[in-house]
Amino acid sequence: MADLQARTGEDKRATEVPVLRWEEPPEGPVLVLLDQTRLPSEEVELVCTDAPALVEAIRSLAVRGAPALGIAGAYGVALAAARGFDVDEAAQALAGARPTAVNLSVGVRRARDAYHAALARGGDAGQAAAAALAAARQLHREDAEASARMAEHGLALLDELLPGGGHRILTHCNTGALVSGGEGTAFAVALAAHRQGRLRRLWVDETRPLLQGARLTAYEAARSGMAYTLLTDNAAGSLFAAGEVDAVLIGADRIAADGSVANKVGSYPLAVLARYHHVPFIVVAPVTTVDLGTVDGTSIEVEQRPGYEVTEVLAPQAQVSGAGSGIPVAPLGTQAYNPAFDVTPPELVTAIVTEEGAVSPVTAEGLAELCGKAGHARA
Amino acid sequence: MADLQARTGEDKRATEVPVLRWEEPPEGPVLVLLDQTRLPSEEVELVCTDAPALVEAIRSLAVRGAPALGIAGAYGVALAAARGFDVDEAAQALAGARPTAVNLSVGVRRARDAYHAALARGGDAGQAAAAALAAARQLHREDAEASARMAEHGLALLDELLPGGGHRILTHCNTGALVSGGEGTAFAVALAAHRQGRLRRLWVDETRPLLQGARLTAYEAARSGMAYTLLTDNAAGSLFAAGEVDAVLIGADRIAADGSVANKVGSYPLAVLARYHHVPFIVVAPVTTVDLGTVDGTSIEVEQRPGYEVTEVLAPQAQVSGAGSGIPVAPLGTQAYNPAFDVTPPELVTAIVTEEGAVSPVTAEGLAELCGKAGHARA
Repeated sequence: MADLQARTGEDKRATEVPVLRWEEPPEGPVLVLLDQTRLPSEEVELVCTDAPALVEAIRSLAVRGAPALGIAGAYGVALAAARGFDVDEAAQALAGARPTAVNLSVGVRRARDAYHAALARGGDAGQAAAAALAAARQLHREDAEASARMAEHGLALLDELLPGGGHRILTHCNTGALVSGGEGTAFAVALAAHRQGRLRRLWVDETRPLLQGARLTAYEAARSGMAYTLLTDNAAGSLFAAGEVDAVLIGADRIAADGSVANKVGSYPLAVLARYHHVPFIVVAPVTTVDLGTVDGTSIEVEQRPGYEVTEVLAPQAQVSGAGSGIPVAPLGTQAYNPAFDVTPPELVTAIVTEEGAVSPVTAEGLAELCGKAGHARA
Repeated sequence: MADLQARTGEDKRATEVPVLRWEEPPEGPVLVLLDQTRLPSEEVELVCTDAPALVEAIRSLAVRGAPALGIAGAYGVALAAARGFDVDEAAQALAGARPTAVNLSVGVRRARDAYHAALARGGDAGQAAAAALAAARQLHREDAEASARMAEHGLALLDELLPGGGHRILTHCNTGALVSGGEGTAFAVALAAHRQGRLRRLWVDETRPLLQGARLTAYEAARSGMAYTLLTDNAAGSLFAAGEVDAVLIGADRIAADGSVANKVGSYPLAVLARYHHVPFIVVAPVTTVDLGTVDGTSIEVEQRPGYEVTEVLAPQAQVSGAGSGIPVAPLGTQAYNPAFDVTPPELVTAIVTEEGAVSPVTAEGLAELCGKAGHARA
């Protein structure tokens, strides 16, 4: 079951936004999640004491974003083990909570495998539960480390491209701590620049239709004390024209072998604007985002989302239901074109930054080399 | 005073959207307005029997758009005259209803001048009122004629640029009958193509932050029976990349002497995308939009709108209040960059279409010549 607890005023001022954390109060271990469906209007935590509560939290999007889902899934297995529930049953329910999220099932499998390996080594249930928890913590740590290294490589690249400092960075969608075990991808680079006093302004695209920029990135920027300004996606052109953007930093959902980048819809127009205005366009993503099995951009299948996300305006709370229960803003029966992401070809991408380093210019050879390094490091 | 009357089911299916019309029922003359604040959820007409009711309708944005405001103001003067109210007092109140709308005061002056000229010629109050009404009708007719001629010139240009027909046209903001005495500007061209069976698809940008595309253009397209699809502004890039846009058609708020076009924010990114994809970018506007006193794009002052239009989502009804009474979608205290329009330089504009013809390529000389023709025609 899950309990709600409001966070204290002191917590709210902290820079770190803990997406999830494992706690062991006297009543038994729990997984505490920041309920992202309540952001930015309320900071409420969900306390999960068993796997079904976590499954519900994942389904309701209280926790979201590929890396964060993987970590949550792994902790969910550890929770079931620590509380003496059936681990395989919990693992199956967790992995199926959002069937399309690959990271979720990968994270679940990793903790479950650790649990069974401990049993196979002759460990008791307590030792097996400890092994599952250790696997979850390891995944969490790895993701946080990858974030930190992406931030480091990204900041070095920024400083090389823009030697003056005082960066004015435009970003799109949400790529910070809310989707990560660490501080995220593109947002982590901006945050690193901020901490070193080299960020003059973070321009935050609101990111229609689901407003992840307005709801989540603005929230993260505000908590981090960054100088940030929100804008409608279509106002970015004016900023470029006025010379107010020094670099664009975005994340990626998938990167094809040729360096084509699939990311939240609206990324490609920014790439075209950046090219027209001679502004660097930088993609920040972990090596696991590179899919060498996808040859090029045309092989990336673009998910079409329901039209009601466009024809109705959803209040932050209403997004949970996701059932067209928003306020209609278009005539009834209006058909909407609503691709979830778009594809930016490698020739418009100045650099792809990963935890293993940056590749610039973006070439298939350069990407393959980074993937090889990562594979070597993991082996 | 103003009464509300719901329109009949039969009316709703008509193609024509009457923004305003003069009627003379037995109880006395009235000005009937389509209440645009209720669109697209409801089609309700406001019946104004005196100038104060019209002033209120203008303030609440029940009627909006530069040409439509001018026509409404002229009819308002005629209404005051016909009902025996003080015409100068009514004219003053109407002209001040939205002080920044130049067309409004021009329209008011035109009807008031006609009224006083009739009196000066020795006419009685009835003859003077008739003269004011005739002036309002003349303005209304001129605007409708300008729309028709823009549509004609625009369609000829489209057919020249895209000889195959089956046009897929992308448009931004609202440029149809709702802002005009006729069928509008850019929208009128798309409508003309539709009537001749040459429009395959109208792509309608939702046009954040106030969603004029979703609320008003989709409404006009639906009523006209056009094949249209709504999209978030940032999804236009995907359409261009997929080769789904044959031309962009937009209106203009002001055109500088060099051909720089100020229009609703989001127009400039479309111009950059159109150029990158070798797609014609066509501006449709009456000659009165060309401001020869504004030398170039840098001389155009861009109005900055309140941040709450971005940080809060306003339901169609809530827009009337315009006081930040929407649903917050960003953290409290978030600062927003919210320019009302952007400026597209002439080198990105394929053609400017006016009622006097098209200029392409866009040059200062070509524009000046068109303005000269219009001045000659008016003189």
